[in-house]
Amino acid sequence: MTSPAADLVTAAILVIGDEILSGRTKDKNIGYIAEYLTVIGVDPREVRVVPDVEEEIVAALNALRSRYTYVFTTGGIGPTHDDITADAVAKAFGVSIDHDPRAVAILKERFAKTGTELNEARLRMARIPAGADLIANKVSGAPGFRIGNVMVMAGVPSIMQAMLDEVAPSLRTGRKMLSETIRADAKEGDVGTELGEVAARFPGASIGSYPFVDDRAVPNTNIVVRARDAETLAAATAAVEEMLARVKQALAAR
Amino acid sequence: MTSPAADLVTAAILVIGDEILSGRTKDKNIGYIAEYLTVIGVDPREVRVVPDVEEEIVAALNALRSRYTYVFTTGGIGPTHDDITADAVAKAFGVSIDHDPRAVAILKERFAKTGTELNEARLRMARIPAGADLIANKVSGAPGFRIGNVMVMAGVPSIMQAMLDEVAPSLRTGRKMLSETIRADAKEGDVGTELGEVAARFPGASIGSYPFVDDRAVPNTNIVVRARDAETLAAATAAVEEMLARVKQALAAR
Repeated sequence: MTSPAADLVTAAILVIGDEILSGRTKDKNIGYIAEYLTVIGVDPREVRVVPDVEEEIVAALNALRSRYTYVFTTGGIGPTHDDITADAVAKAFGVSIDHDPRAVAILKERFAKTGTELNEARLRMARIPAGADLIANKVSGAPGFRIGNVMVMAGVPSIMQAMLDEVAPSLRTGRKMLSETIRADAKEGDVGTELGEVAARFPGASIGSYPFVDDRAVPNTNIVVRARDAETLAAATAAVEEMLARVKQALAAR
Repeated sequence: MTSPAADLVTAAILVIGDEILSGRTKDKNIGYIAEYLTVIGVDPREVRVVPDVEEEIVAALNALRSRYTYVFTTGGIGPTHDDITADAVAKAFGVSIDHDPRAVAILKERFAKTGTELNEARLRMARIPAGADLIANKVSGAPGFRIGNVMVMAGVPSIMQAMLDEVAPSLRTGRKMLSETIRADAKEGDVGTELGEVAARFPGASIGSYPFVDDRAVPNTNIVVRARDAETLAAATAAVEEMLARVKQALAAR
């Protein structure tokens, strides 16, 4: 019998970029990566956004990569002076960084086809830390890379998504988190006490309560039950549904 | 003469919630808060997203509040068992937490008007750490709170936004970051080397390069120049524009 922890594969997402912190660019990657990883059986446990400052990237990366199975970074691997992620990752791992012949070959082939000059700025995109594997970029050529448990991806959403598709098959995955969403048709405050009692009875499940306002501006609640085994999920879901029926009947009888 | 650092007011954003980490709910608060703070002269420097786990919230909050002028949290202050932010904040500050008479009075008045029962679950929303000031919630009544340099706000975007409006006038603000966006009408890789040279000439400005694809699917670049004083901003912007004209002329002459 394996311990439950052996089935768990965890991840952190590290978003790198001044433009996200200033609010100029609204991040579109966190939610996408979080949902993608959850679906394949990797649990996102933490997200950080840091500026284009080497020591900040190094510190965050070292904190996260020692703590989680995988770290996924986005941003800072383009051709300009503010793209410092590859150098920061090399520093975090204590390895050298230089133009990687594999990456240079990819860029040469790509730019030859499009008649684009492979100048000094573009060659910057071939700087890869020693010992890293490349992550193919089918959208625009310049690769990401994987070093240890860290996947370094582009910040442009379409490119990041293509890189995630490339790297996903190589990831170890755990038991998937299963979930059921129950629309309560009740206000969160009307069912909160009883929902807490149900949650206490099912320590193997995680039960979340999310208020929303429906199409007719009526306050409503989604209750999300999550568990790794189908039996626990079914039992906790049934208990929530039974509780909702009971509480709503009592409210109606007043 | 004041030191430049005295003019700087910094902030971190701490998003609390399993539903963001699983990707089930896509965060809408980070970008909003980041832009809002930047506009009023508070610099967002770091964002973290953590799960509904007390020790994770405590650890992240203590790391952030000691490092930045302000911390803004979102999520986990509702009426259900998974709303543990107020208790975690009390623990981080080492203070007690109980039903706050001011918050109870607000809830009583609000719920009396709407004919809503003030039950045990709803009273949970009046749990406020000792020594905290309330942050009014004009949308749905249940307040947020401020303790020390930490603002604790709701996760529902409309409520969070109303709370941010309440708290903003009380914040110390620094010199605003000024910015200019220059549409390069060039590929990032074509101007990257020269842009790095301009950036090196203006250490008082921060110059970012952001590729995008225009309406006709042509790769283009926005160059964003940021500085706290208008003279530096104008000089760096002019230098970028001069560089762009020069590089594009050279490209056209080939």
